[in-house]
Amino acid sequence: LIREYEDEERQSLPAFGIPDDQFLSVKKTMTREEVRVVTLAKLRLRHDMCLWDIGAGSGSISIEADYLLPQGRVFAIERNDESLGFLRENLRRFNARNVTLVTGSAPDCLDALPDPDRVFIGGSGGHLWEILEQVDQRLAIGGLIVLNAVTLDTLTATNDYFDNAGYQVEVVALNIARTRPDTNYKMFEAYNPVYIITGMKQ
Amino acid sequence: LIREYEDEERQSLPAFGIPDDQFLSVKKTMTREEVRVVTLAKLRLRHDMCLWDIGAGSGSISIEADYLLPQGRVFAIERNDESLGFLRENLRRFNARNVTLVTGSAPDCLDALPDPDRVFIGGSGGHLWEILEQVDQRLAIGGLIVLNAVTLDTLTATNDYFDNAGYQVEVVALNIARTRPDTNYKMFEAYNPVYIITGMKQ
Amino acid sequence: LIREYEDEERQSLPAFGIPDDQFLSVKKTMTREEVRVVTLAKLRLRHDMCLWDIGAGSGSISIEADYLLPQGRVFAIERNDESLGFLRENLRRFNARNVTLVTGSAPDCLDALPDPDRVFIGGSGGHLWEILEQVDQRLAIGGLIVLNAVTLDTLTATNDYFDNAGYQVEVVALNIARTRPDTNYKMFEAYNPVYIITGMKQ
Amino acid sequence: LIREYEDEERQSLPAFGIPDDQFLSVKKTMTREEVRVVTLAKLRLRHDMCLWDIGAGSGSISIEADYLLPQGRVFAIERNDESLGFLRENLRRFNARNVTLVTGSAPDCLDALPDPDRVFIGGSGGHLWEILEQVDQRLAIGGLIVLNAVTLDTLTATNDYFDNAGYQVEVVALNIARTRPDTNYKMFEAYNPVYIITGMKQ
Repeated sequence: LIREYEDEERQSLPAFGIPDDQFLSVKKTMTREEVRVVTLAKLRLRHDMCLWDIGAGSGSISIEADYLLPQGRVFAIERNDESLGFLRENLRRFNARNVTLVTGSAPDCLDALPDPDRVFIGGSGGHLWEILEQVDQRLAIGGLIVLNAVTLDTLTATNDYFDNAGYQVEVVALNIARTRPDTNYKMFEAYNPVYIITGMKQ
Repeated sequence: LIREYEDEERQSLPAFGIPDDQFLSVKKTMTREEVRVVTLAKLRLRHDMCLWDIGAGSGSISIEADYLLPQGRVFAIERNDESLGFLRENLRRFNARNVTLVTGSAPDCLDALPDPDRVFIGGSGGHLWEILEQVDQRLAIGGLIVLNAVTLDTLTATNDYFDNAGYQVEVVALNIARTRPDTNYKMFEAYNPVYIITGMKQ
Repeated sequence: LIREYEDEERQSLPAFGIPDDQFLSVKKTMTREEVRVVTLAKLRLRHDMCLWDIGAGSGSISIEADYLLPQGRVFAIERNDESLGFLRENLRRFNARNVTLVTGSAPDCLDALPDPDRVFIGGSGGHLWEILEQVDQRLAIGGLIVLNAVTLDTLTATNDYFDNAGYQVEVVALNIARTRPDTNYKMFEAYNPVYIITGMKQ
Repeated sequence: LIREYEDEERQSLPAFGIPDDQFLSVKKTMTREEVRVVTLAKLRLRHDMCLWDIGAGSGSISIEADYLLPQGRVFAIERNDESLGFLRENLRRFNARNVTLVTGSAPDCLDALPDPDRVFIGGSGGHLWEILEQVDQRLAIGGLIVLNAVTLDTLTATNDYFDNAGYQVEVVALNIARTRPDTNYKMFEAYNPVYIITGMKQ
């Protein structure tokens, strides 16, 4: 079990809690740093687990998870071409060695992957229910699915799925505001609320 | 740079985002899991840094930081006898090998410690200003102080100190609510808001 | 159109925004003052309207609405005996002259009432869907139903009903914390979040 | 004590809780409807009181207060020319008959006004401390000052003033998000947090 830090660029960055502006991303679509780390905590990652990151976007979840999974595997699944460009560059830049990029749409592309211990759903491209059904077939009892919802529709649909499928569910509502470090006055600016839904298969 | 997982008890726990109920603590005084991980992110820990955890309480920040600092050092400073009992047991239980327990009151006990790269202030025992002054003398430029405030008084005093001392300041307000996994209905229960203040020495 | 203030007790109280501690109530079940006034605003009351207050509890919504409806009518519907005792006393104390107390369970007791312009649902006793269906049959186009949800279940069910029935829906999430005026330090204490759902019949 | 509704335009509007889009205003600077009504509640207005509305902006607080003060007086104080244009038009449109427009800067223009029972400070033009000192000299014991802060600086300064002057202080933090009624999905959009500070002169 060895973790090397041969990449100097990576060394100058925090081991955890990478600032948002260090990721290349489609403007304004990235999960905020504070939301990202609470999401990672809810995934309860253990060192040798397999994580599916569905709708990986800029890859910030995959990249931070990679650091927490020195003996694990991460599959970053993304279908959007613009996102894929940023995702590839971020994986290279952060030297995310255990992350495998999967180009394509969930749930179709999930068949080829090894069974997950943990699944994060950051985007579903309108196929949320099918993705949840497919994930459920592959997830062992005790496995976790974590999803970030910014709409009432996604929150409701996910909760309905988990209830029907007999999952144990926790919903965490995050209302976060922050002041900017670079202004003369400290005005609180709000992020839009995010609901982090965690379902544990029973 | 080697990280071993010989402790089986530790292996069954997440690498990051340890559930609150895994820590022994004085009832209801512990930093909540969601607040803890955002705090850790704000500390921008790098693998070989030195962290002072002032008012360590149950040690949850020290223990999670230890995992993120495989080559670093953590000093957990606590003066309360009841907390010290839980802290000692938690450090043992989580096999936090790079954490040194410092029994005593800040700022007095800080003299004997090596200079910090990062400082977390979880409690100040009424000596906030003196602690900040003492920390400032030991912190290098670019170093970070992170503090969790639950009162307007602490928020104001910390902000005043940082402004006077020329620090760059960010305040993150966390308003978090969650449903409990073990009930038939999902009622949102709020945590009290926490203000995470980060000061960077200029 | 005349509004008299012959009641001295009432005169010493605010015209609007009555402090929580002025109402007798079953402990801790009352809508908080800040939530109450946002709820009243969402009801868009006009001076001669008819309001149904279903699950009136302590009567705080009915009593404040009464002041805003000098030519209107308010029906305060409550079935719980303990609540009814407090409700009666509060109506008397605040001299709420246009409020009619309706003892019984919704939706059954709604038949006898005149059609509403506005309906507030503060409690449904497990009959939410039936109440919404019954209210819908009596409400004119443009009429409003406002509901306060503290559980994800109620939020979801109400939203589902409104979507199915073709209502225009707004959800306002209130996350409120406050310091107590009577302490030496100002600690922020959170209320549990409340979702104020407003449905307009199309 | 008579309140007439001869103005038809006014009649079609709610007695309380006027929607934001009914006020003409400088873009995006208006107090949001939910914040406005909690502010009005905190002012504890009684029917014959005198209210100073310092930095009246679009006049939304003055206009809603006018309805709650049928025998009272409201002084809407504003110095910004663009705001004054909207303010005048809003007062006319809502038939706010007991509102007197005061053109000028606080604290200078306050000398000419009758003593207030209640003071709302919506803007201070950089003269917050002087305004608070001047208001304090005119306010009777038991009188209330309410202020909406969106920056940590204003929150801190106001709290410091009230503490020094021996006022009893309550701070309410409002974190509000809402879905828009006119979209196919219901995405929660956050307002920036507002701190409503109420000081009671002892």
